[in-house]
Amino acid sequence: MSMRVYNFSAGPAMLPTPVMEKAQEEFCNYHGVGNGIIELTHRGAQFEEVLGRAKSNIKELMNISDEYEIIFVQGGASLQFSMIPMNLMLPGGFAEYADTGTWANKAAKEAKLFGNVKIIASSKDTNYNKIPDIRHWKPEAGSSYLHLTSNNTVFGTQYHAFPDMDGTGVPLIADMSSDIMSRRIDVNKFGLIYAGAQKNIGPSGICLVIMKKELAERTHEKIPTMLKYSTYIDNDSMYNTPPTFAIYMIALVTDWLKEQGGLTVVEEINDMKSEVLYELIDKSAFYRCPAEPSNRSKMNVNFRLPTEELEEKFVKEAKANGMLGLKGHRSVGGIRASIYNAMPMKGVEQLIDFMNEFERIYG
Amino acid sequence: MSMRVYNFSAGPAMLPTPVMEKAQEEFCNYHGVGNGIIELTHRGAQFEEVLGRAKSNIKELMNISDEYEIIFVQGGASLQFSMIPMNLMLPGGFAEYADTGTWANKAAKEAKLFGNVKIIASSKDTNYNKIPDIRHWKPEAGSSYLHLTSNNTVFGTQYHAFPDMDGTGVPLIADMSSDIMSRRIDVNKFGLIYAGAQKNIGPSGICLVIMKKELAERTHEKIPTMLKYSTYIDNDSMYNTPPTFAIYMIALVTDWLKEQGGLTVVEEINDMKSEVLYELIDKSAFYRCPAEPSNRSKMNVNFRLPTEELEEKFVKEAKANGMLGLKGHRSVGGIRASIYNAMPMKGVEQLIDFMNEFERIYG
Repeated sequence: MSMRVYNFSAGPAMLPTPVMEKAQEEFCNYHGVGNGIIELTHRGAQFEEVLGRAKSNIKELMNISDEYEIIFVQGGASLQFSMIPMNLMLPGGFAEYADTGTWANKAAKEAKLFGNVKIIASSKDTNYNKIPDIRHWKPEAGSSYLHLTSNNTVFGTQYHAFPDMDGTGVPLIADMSSDIMSRRIDVNKFGLIYAGAQKNIGPSGICLVIMKKELAERTHEKIPTMLKYSTYIDNDSMYNTPPTFAIYMIALVTDWLKEQGGLTVVEEINDMKSEVLYELIDKSAFYRCPAEPSNRSKMNVNFRLPTEELEEKFVKEAKANGMLGLKGHRSVGGIRASIYNAMPMKGVEQLIDFMNEFERIYG
Repeated sequence: MSMRVYNFSAGPAMLPTPVMEKAQEEFCNYHGVGNGIIELTHRGAQFEEVLGRAKSNIKELMNISDEYEIIFVQGGASLQFSMIPMNLMLPGGFAEYADTGTWANKAAKEAKLFGNVKIIASSKDTNYNKIPDIRHWKPEAGSSYLHLTSNNTVFGTQYHAFPDMDGTGVPLIADMSSDIMSRRIDVNKFGLIYAGAQKNIGPSGICLVIMKKELAERTHEKIPTMLKYSTYIDNDSMYNTPPTFAIYMIALVTDWLKEQGGLTVVEEINDMKSEVLYELIDKSAFYRCPAEPSNRSKMNVNFRLPTEELEEKFVKEAKANGMLGLKGHRSVGGIRASIYNAMPMKGVEQLIDFMNEFERIYG
């Protein structure tokens, strides 16, 4: 019996308790082999099954067609900020970026090393409190791709509709690090989706990339082997030793997501979790949410209290009550409740009870 | 009580049993926090302590001076094959490489994208069965660096002495993926040492880089953030989310190495383990070792049996007797017993008993 507490950290984040317990149970002796999966060769039957299962689970959960390849890359989303333009910027070309927060901005910055970057929309002027409406965006002729960040952890905003690039020939690329597999999306609308695993689907140290295979043909020869998408596609993510334990954890988490009933059910639960929190905040004169109501994130519920002193007290008392990681990002302050897939409704209910009680006392 | 078996795999490799048991015990609840370390933020007190401990353990074990920085990078040694020339090749310059095996060769190949590569010594002609003697190598004027691979897993060879570059101004760079912390070395003789962790010091998905700080100044501006050494040095390997669980495992393994008595003791044990194996092979008319006696690896003991059929039978029967991973690399065949730090003398003794018995029956 483990003493598990609710961890509202933005990432690395809590993993589903049944996943953690299973990984613990077989940690030293995987399926009777006499060693843990973390110790076994990546070229053996055990890990090959794990890798295959992780991939087929993701394919099934996200309803991904055979036009796409699922690969695992190290270096986090931050390395993708470079790999994307390195591989996909057209020669002497430009790419379009939507700037909706810290990470979107960093992605655009990195791309400048490889070509021209056009910021086609930004909410920087209003401190990233919303998502610019780019649903009907028509890319400029010759654009290499349009890049966006589907969910902004620091500011608590999220795209609830994506631009439709059908017929433009310009691929849509999305950093989904903080909302991958938290809801249904139509993968066919995207050229490439990437996501650091450490929020919704696994531990840190691994980045999931879902890529339209034909896009990999853009890459020119003179790119380092480990930075070419084709290396991962051609070698089933095993050109060199992959982060085996991280892939194993993704296999377990995606097994669990399937057991939950897949993304339809997961999305419903995530909707509920965020709705009850925003409802409390909107009804209260004590709590307030800086993000525009129509662009609020269902993953990171950011809110403020009347004073910074109260915010500090809130974080401290929540911790004493078994709720970790509620401090907002250091660049914006306030409170941030990250409620990814592994956060159960019970955890949100405990937070709501605490918020009500805290307001009763200090409000 | 776990049923642990001896795993002779070349990597990912077995980890020390006490380390595995400790990681298992606290997997779901790290130090009473109520979540596992794999779930905790990298910006919190728990992980910061882990990272600090991993670094200070490495510093202490390898006797590393303050002129060096210890950083953790994702992407394995294979990404270092590119990062090294990308960061350290002098403008319009060249670098020197010693070619002693599959990985040494790959490292040289990757460097060609960034400058001229001079192979200063090679054992390719004799199928990499030895280490060319470069102890007295004098680098060419203007050389960016000299790169070597200290231990060659595929062929079972190892440098037992390194070139002395003192006074040449040319840094010596070594891929020590397969023998890091298996013996004492003088770090001061190197400009940069790197090692994928998955053989001697941890799981896959993390690469240790020990680098003379002043070398990082060579890097020019226009290199992607995640591929610059200075990014890791300036941000204590936390520019983005690091592979926290892998770093935690390195902290545990290096704790254990210290408990063993440090590298003096570890080296003695590794010497003994390899000596008894080579002694058996050399005395036998049944087993033979392709590597030159003076260049044999203490980490990967490669040997052949009279026929491939017998080799296949050997691997199969060893597995049935609780010894995994003895098959040689697919490119060379034969048997390979990888006996890294975590392989106890008892495991080697069990292998020796099995080898004697196998020879008695089939010899």
